[in-house]
Amino acid sequence: MQQLLYGVAYYDEYMPYERLDEDIRMMKAAGINLVRIAESTWSTHEPQNGVFDFRSVDRVLDAMHKAGISVIVGTPTYAVPTWMVKEHPDVLAETPNGPGRYGARQIMDITNPTYLFYSERIIRKLIGRVCGHPAVIGYQVDNETKHYHTSGPNVQLRFVKAMKNKFGTVERLNEEFGLDYWSNRINGWEDFPSVVGTINGSLGAEFARFQRGLVTEFLAWQASIVNEYKHADQFVTHNFDFGWRDGSFGVQPDVDHFAAAEALDIAGVDIYHPSQDLLTGKEISYCGDSTRSLKGSNYFVLETQAQAFPHWTPYPRQLRLQAFSHLASGANMVEYWHWHSIHNSAETYWKGLLSHDLGPNPTYEEAMTIGRDFARLSSKLIHLKKSNRAAILVSNEALTSLEWFRLPGGKAAYNDIVRLMYDRLYEMNIGCDILHPGSQNFEDYDLIVVPALYAASDELLSRLNRYAENGGRIVYTFKSGFANEHIKVRTDAQPGLIGEACGVRYSQFIEPKSVSLKGDPFGVGADNNDVTVWMELLTPTTAEVLAWYDHPHWGQYAAITENRYGKGTATYIGCLPSEAVMGKVLERACKDAGLWGLDQELAFPLIVKSGTNQEGRTIRYYFNYSAGTKSFAYPYGKGTELLADRPVSQGELIELERWGVAIIEEDTKIKG
Amino acid sequence: MQQLLYGVAYYDEYMPYERLDEDIRMMKAAGINLVRIAESTWSTHEPQNGVFDFRSVDRVLDAMHKAGISVIVGTPTYAVPTWMVKEHPDVLAETPNGPGRYGARQIMDITNPTYLFYSERIIRKLIGRVCGHPAVIGYQVDNETKHYHTSGPNVQLRFVKAMKNKFGTVERLNEEFGLDYWSNRINGWEDFPSVVGTINGSLGAEFARFQRGLVTEFLAWQASIVNEYKHADQFVTHNFDFGWRDGSFGVQPDVDHFAAAEALDIAGVDIYHPSQDLLTGKEISYCGDSTRSLKGSNYFVLETQAQAFPHWTPYPRQLRLQAFSHLASGANMVEYWHWHSIHNSAETYWKGLLSHDLGPNPTYEEAMTIGRDFARLSSKLIHLKKSNRAAILVSNEALTSLEWFRLPGGKAAYNDIVRLMYDRLYEMNIGCDILHPGSQNFEDYDLIVVPALYAASDELLSRLNRYAENGGRIVYTFKSGFANEHIKVRTDAQPGLIGEACGVRYSQFIEPKSVSLKGDPFGVGADNNDVTVWMELLTPTTAEVLAWYDHPHWGQYAAITENRYGKGTATYIGCLPSEAVMGKVLERACKDAGLWGLDQELAFPLIVKSGTNQEGRTIRYYFNYSAGTKSFAYPYGKGTELLADRPVSQGELIELERWGVAIIEEDTKIKG
Amino acid sequence: MQQLLYGVAYYDEYMPYERLDEDIRMMKAAGINLVRIAESTWSTHEPQNGVFDFRSVDRVLDAMHKAGISVIVGTPTYAVPTWMVKEHPDVLAETPNGPGRYGARQIMDITNPTYLFYSERIIRKLIGRVCGHPAVIGYQVDNETKHYHTSGPNVQLRFVKAMKNKFGTVERLNEEFGLDYWSNRINGWEDFPSVVGTINGSLGAEFARFQRGLVTEFLAWQASIVNEYKHADQFVTHNFDFGWRDGSFGVQPDVDHFAAAEALDIAGVDIYHPSQDLLTGKEISYCGDSTRSLKGSNYFVLETQAQAFPHWTPYPRQLRLQAFSHLASGANMVEYWHWHSIHNSAETYWKGLLSHDLGPNPTYEEAMTIGRDFARLSSKLIHLKKSNRAAILVSNEALTSLEWFRLPGGKAAYNDIVRLMYDRLYEMNIGCDILHPGSQNFEDYDLIVVPALYAASDELLSRLNRYAENGGRIVYTFKSGFANEHIKVRTDAQPGLIGEACGVRYSQFIEPKSVSLKGDPFGVGADNNDVTVWMELLTPTTAEVLAWYDHPHWGQYAAITENRYGKGTATYIGCLPSEAVMGKVLERACKDAGLWGLDQELAFPLIVKSGTNQEGRTIRYYFNYSAGTKSFAYPYGKGTELLADRPVSQGELIELERWGVAIIEEDTKIKG
Repeated sequence: MQQLLYGVAYYDEYMPYERLDEDIRMMKAAGINLVRIAESTWSTHEPQNGVFDFRSVDRVLDAMHKAGISVIVGTPTYAVPTWMVKEHPDVLAETPNGPGRYGARQIMDITNPTYLFYSERIIRKLIGRVCGHPAVIGYQVDNETKHYHTSGPNVQLRFVKAMKNKFGTVERLNEEFGLDYWSNRINGWEDFPSVVGTINGSLGAEFARFQRGLVTEFLAWQASIVNEYKHADQFVTHNFDFGWRDGSFGVQPDVDHFAAAEALDIAGVDIYHPSQDLLTGKEISYCGDSTRSLKGSNYFVLETQAQAFPHWTPYPRQLRLQAFSHLASGANMVEYWHWHSIHNSAETYWKGLLSHDLGPNPTYEEAMTIGRDFARLSSKLIHLKKSNRAAILVSNEALTSLEWFRLPGGKAAYNDIVRLMYDRLYEMNIGCDILHPGSQNFEDYDLIVVPALYAASDELLSRLNRYAENGGRIVYTFKSGFANEHIKVRTDAQPGLIGEACGVRYSQFIEPKSVSLKGDPFGVGADNNDVTVWMELLTPTTAEVLAWYDHPHWGQYAAITENRYGKGTATYIGCLPSEAVMGKVLERACKDAGLWGLDQELAFPLIVKSGTNQEGRTIRYYFNYSAGTKSFAYPYGKGTELLADRPVSQGELIELERWGVAIIEEDTKIKG
Repeated sequence: MQQLLYGVAYYDEYMPYERLDEDIRMMKAAGINLVRIAESTWSTHEPQNGVFDFRSVDRVLDAMHKAGISVIVGTPTYAVPTWMVKEHPDVLAETPNGPGRYGARQIMDITNPTYLFYSERIIRKLIGRVCGHPAVIGYQVDNETKHYHTSGPNVQLRFVKAMKNKFGTVERLNEEFGLDYWSNRINGWEDFPSVVGTINGSLGAEFARFQRGLVTEFLAWQASIVNEYKHADQFVTHNFDFGWRDGSFGVQPDVDHFAAAEALDIAGVDIYHPSQDLLTGKEISYCGDSTRSLKGSNYFVLETQAQAFPHWTPYPRQLRLQAFSHLASGANMVEYWHWHSIHNSAETYWKGLLSHDLGPNPTYEEAMTIGRDFARLSSKLIHLKKSNRAAILVSNEALTSLEWFRLPGGKAAYNDIVRLMYDRLYEMNIGCDILHPGSQNFEDYDLIVVPALYAASDELLSRLNRYAENGGRIVYTFKSGFANEHIKVRTDAQPGLIGEACGVRYSQFIEPKSVSLKGDPFGVGADNNDVTVWMELLTPTTAEVLAWYDHPHWGQYAAITENRYGKGTATYIGCLPSEAVMGKVLERACKDAGLWGLDQELAFPLIVKSGTNQEGRTIRYYFNYSAGTKSFAYPYGKGTELLADRPVSQGELIELERWGVAIIEEDTKIKG
Repeated sequence: MQQLLYGVAYYDEYMPYERLDEDIRMMKAAGINLVRIAESTWSTHEPQNGVFDFRSVDRVLDAMHKAGISVIVGTPTYAVPTWMVKEHPDVLAETPNGPGRYGARQIMDITNPTYLFYSERIIRKLIGRVCGHPAVIGYQVDNETKHYHTSGPNVQLRFVKAMKNKFGTVERLNEEFGLDYWSNRINGWEDFPSVVGTINGSLGAEFARFQRGLVTEFLAWQASIVNEYKHADQFVTHNFDFGWRDGSFGVQPDVDHFAAAEALDIAGVDIYHPSQDLLTGKEISYCGDSTRSLKGSNYFVLETQAQAFPHWTPYPRQLRLQAFSHLASGANMVEYWHWHSIHNSAETYWKGLLSHDLGPNPTYEEAMTIGRDFARLSSKLIHLKKSNRAAILVSNEALTSLEWFRLPGGKAAYNDIVRLMYDRLYEMNIGCDILHPGSQNFEDYDLIVVPALYAASDELLSRLNRYAENGGRIVYTFKSGFANEHIKVRTDAQPGLIGEACGVRYSQFIEPKSVSLKGDPFGVGADNNDVTVWMELLTPTTAEVLAWYDHPHWGQYAAITENRYGKGTATYIGCLPSEAVMGKVLERACKDAGLWGLDQELAFPLIVKSGTNQEGRTIRYYFNYSAGTKSFAYPYGKGTELLADRPVSQGELIELERWGVAIIEEDTKIKG
């Protein structure tokens, strides 16, 4: 892959009239050099059981090739044809809400052998047919795969077998999950009740982990089939998505991205985000960092929004800002979902680059400028190497466990805490990688922040202690260390093993009402000094107290502490603080970790992201995430602003118009 | 029918003790000259399969006849007996929520042959028995019939056959409904999945249309049976009801009133509405106009509230105001649901004219004055001929389509937009008829207003263009013309065909945040100048712009436009404006259409409604819909105020006490 | 039982590691002299069908005995083992939401013979084994038993038979429940439809009463089995719970406490309540009074909170305040649920006296002081005799009926009105007993308050009239007397029979909007003078009007009246008033009834409760339910403050620190 890819999802099958030539003409005009096809239309390609019709695939491949547009072919397995469900209703997943019914996509049992049989056949037919076509550069297996809560008797049986393998005896299982409670004890494997009704969070979370494993297995199985056909210069990818909150928000509860990505050649991602006045770049950055971290290299944005919804239609210049923001996080591709707005069915109002009238529109016209710049600057911007010194540790297990044991009030869940920390680093222009419990490279980082690591093994906590001891800088929030990997609460003083590194302990916790931090220790003002949702009554053992609670009854307890531990330092935040306080605590940690540099002189909405390009030169993206003009003094060695293609000297004042971008390549090559 | 009917629903079967003579005595005292009976008590009349007991019917008919009170007999088919469900559980409708369960009314599958067999038998038994009775003046078939979401396998099968008839081939079906999307394609009729789970709005809306057809068919079938027995001077009617929003609010989603009314002799209606400080007369007017338009003639109010709920118990004089308001819209009957308050079960707190103590009460005492006036003025007020020059075009299809593709925020649905337009006309004293897509008499009107006509055929839009071209005045809101009759979005520039008459086009739309109309073009003040929920980014082609958006990014787009087209004019409102702005836009259109006259000098809460009585004289009702005294100068030729029976001269100041009524008959006969 | 019991629920089965000796050591240190065991762990004690394992029971009994700690053994029947459900899925209750699924507790059909067979066997095995053990002082049958909405075909069949027994013929049934309505008539017992879908409140409420009867029957059956084993010095108890609203709030809808308590030797109760700034003692008082009234004697608090939830963790001194408050209402036991915080499953965050770290914590340390004082003062404080002159009449039937016919707005249900009255008496330090419709001792009281007695038989209302006639003081709220015991609305003028004693009548009622009491007759200020939710338009017949409505249309009607009737007086409150107005009305009634004494000089947050101890001396508890210091002049004869063990003289100023307690024993013995 030698160029930046600028693409769209393309559905010839959905077109209301013959449009292929006109579409390609308009794509070329916009610099589109990639389309993704075929991932949603199984019923078109196999209209009846064993009858195949790939005409729309063939003609699109031929036409794209002729036009010099590359193609990613998707396996169409995430939406099943009507005939299959009519013949074999049990391909639909049985979920806690009962048996499935036909209509929506992603409703099948991904472990059902009938479904797997037909899936394998269509994959082999399709991929076998297209793999030799010169337009095809790679494959997407399935689409935003999840387990769809499949939990019928067959899944339950596999789960019981998995538990047998894991625990050996029911006694071990009962003990580890505390099943004596409320007479839930299982005294023979044959007595194992369906997990669907369980009130035992340990068991429920184990089942969730098992279900995530089904996704990993399913994607690996698809990839292994496609690999049989894949040519040497082709790749297999998949478009992961995220926990959703008015857009891609945080950790995906139903998939272990790290495990699932192992079967892929290149990690891909779908990123959707608020827009208009709510555009901040945070989701682009968080999701991009996540995806780059999956395989430690450049990634594809396989789907992102063009116009999408009425409240997301971009303001002028926002589409450009977004496109370059993806590149700045390490993406080698920006692909819109989708080319044209669909005229029927569920996503009629999830608009594409073209509106329903299929003619030019202001958003399409802005895309034309992006396509031009991508083509011109491809060799400068592709394969950006990122090297971050800070990381955030996220965990599927912690997320699930905090779904079982929710924070009071229903306003803050795991991903809120993840983003509370991540977003502050983003605002401070601290580049960040994403770690997971299985990561073996903690020592690569000068700072690790750890949101609400509620469920964690002793091994993981020890490893984190060791990281601090060896000189690492670590910042935990409340709830970390509380329970083991089976969500069994630890029986030691809290916060369990990490209490050692943090130099605190507690045995009581409170839902704060009218509680603030005593004396506004971070100088954030009364409006930002409150503690909400959760507070632990910390007693320092060896830690220094950064903040005490201000409350008539709980004033003797610490809220935020810092502790020297070995050669490192551990901060513990025992409560949910405001964004402002979190920012101050992380700023302190960054400075302590030696991460405070020239980029930190700027702050959101002025965002800077950097990396090294193929030529060994530093590329710095400057983004203005606001509706007002912003300027800054460029502090680095002389270089070239690539969009305007003009030289820039150190100290020069650079002005960014609203929602503006500048990209500066430093002249000097990095040694090495 | 030679007199105004003042009636009550009467349930001898529900009476807690023997009351018939006393009830009739109290009815006579109140001027009640009509009762409706028998429509709810199948289980009493057929206590066991094939065992009949019409004693309560017989005795009530005899007693009413003796007292000179007319009777409408209802067919009791909307609530099935326990024995039937015990013998044949499948008479209960299977709905998207699963199989039915016994208890509530209106839970059966109106296509089930067992149900139809028993229904036909009870109808023939009952109507055959009573049709010769001198008290009986007519029949009500069933009660507020709807399809009750019946969607079991038998209904699905009929629907598939209907689709086969309509489209001929699956290919046509797939194309028209866009079923390639998400692999929903149906490649054989036998593969057709249950529509219950569909996510395809085109298919879903088609099924809703099919279900409305079941209602039309069912009512026609009942009417055809009753017609076999009906005497020449008897009628068949039915009580339609409306989309509900704290009362009868707008278009009934589950019934095509126009189609269903064809089988009836006289259209009937149930009208319930807010009361006390919220009484405005709007629902009485809207629902009355709707029902009068069904057959273009006078109608029956078969049910309306007497006391009803705690929050609806009328203030003194409101019951009178309501009764005459019904007449002013063209009703020949005002019937309360119901005579007495029920002592058990679901509607215990839906009170009748009598409270539970079955004695006189303030509401009953006010009814006595109404009964007196109805009797005295019957020949003056009956058979009022209405002749309106404005109309509003409503559409079941548009309503359904906007349920599938909802406006953002959940605050505005189709009926809100209908009422936003209708209520403004009402407040301006512009009399209004109700049109539907099948109406062939657009040219009868000087002004047609068209709320959110989202789903409409090319034929309908062309007809509307022609209406404007030929000199009509038309006002559209946003979303009109967007999709065809199968909710397929049009592929031309929006708003589709009507863009021609309106002289605008757009390809993007937004959910407005902090958007207003630039420069307050209608002078409504800042509080009323905001745009909410929806805004289309209009570009005028030939139209004059009445209002631009005020927004930093969308300021170059038009919000409201007006366009000369042929001999007529079309206004297009591209956003959801305030009531005040809608009022101003419609005022402008009314003036332009020559509808601004003497009645428009008055405005809500002073409401005037008029028509021509049997003698060819103009009757004008003046209503004070407020808690304060209101007065106005009577602007027409001399006449008689009928309630006080006193002469009125032109220019005379008339005072209406709070919630007051005056009825003036002009002395001069209308020519012709 | 010769000493106050200070206890904890103890689950050896849930312990994460061997703790028994350490737990006992810590219990002894805290003065714990009672544990309850075995009531939740059937699956541990019977790991397979017919295989028993009571090791954890045996070892705990032995260890407790050795330590001098008494034990209550619970029957483990409220949570069924996995093997039972796997073998016999139909032991799970079929409810209106469908068939049951395994997981939670309290999910079985308590009438299922399979379940009853296994229950009886485990009860006989367990109780037969432990009954001779010297540590065992009594038994708890089941746990917070309810009917779990069991309503499958078998329950339905029993219900139909019960209706046959009660009504004899379907005609009587139809008439009494008004089943002609909506064709619900049942013309043969075999036609009786499942009650699950009924919309008939009379039928629905009858079924609810029947379901409560199942609970009574079940508990009596369990008690009868345990009684076969019980030794002479042992007791059988049960832990009743309450309607829940952020804690124990009011009448339990699913159990007739009075009927169910008949099978018990000693009444027991679970009381949970808001804490921290929301701690008021009201729930402790209301639930305590309720439980004491069940058998007219001292009772057990079998469960109450130690730490419980984050928002309930007690402030320093609150645990003490709570413990002595229980004693002041007549409890002989205060037992915490539970000793240790559980490390897995549903109640992980319902913390015990120990936190998860199983070490001392501030709450445990406060418990140590309570244990010390309980032990020291046991002979002074045990068996407190209470003698109240006021009572509140509550009714399961009234509660159920107001669930079927809810007050508008959804903000006030039956228990709100109960507590609106009860809490005002509490705040005025008026001691209160709880009466029920079956109580035969109305004449024991000088004042009876009657909240919303919506469903009541003629017999009950006559008895209340007679009470007033004979000199009693009675205060009714709105809705009282409206319907009979089958929720059939009375056909006389309202409020039915009690209209005679109250000297009022009405036939209309309103949902008030902007209505207040004319002229602020109780001097509560504008903020407290509004009427909300419900107002009846009262016309006094013989009553004096205490308050009129202030409203333009309803101003001629009375809101609150008072009537001399025979030798007594009846107040009728026709609307939902503020707490302040309710307080004033009840204050007036208390004064009139001669209940205003020295204790009424104090008021909430200064609470005083009294009774007579075993030695015949008056014990007075003084509680400061506030975060500020409070003082008062002690007005009674000289005595001893028991906690500090110091003399107190009449008139002496006593100071209570925040959340403080004083207990004064008067020196003089009461004669008799």
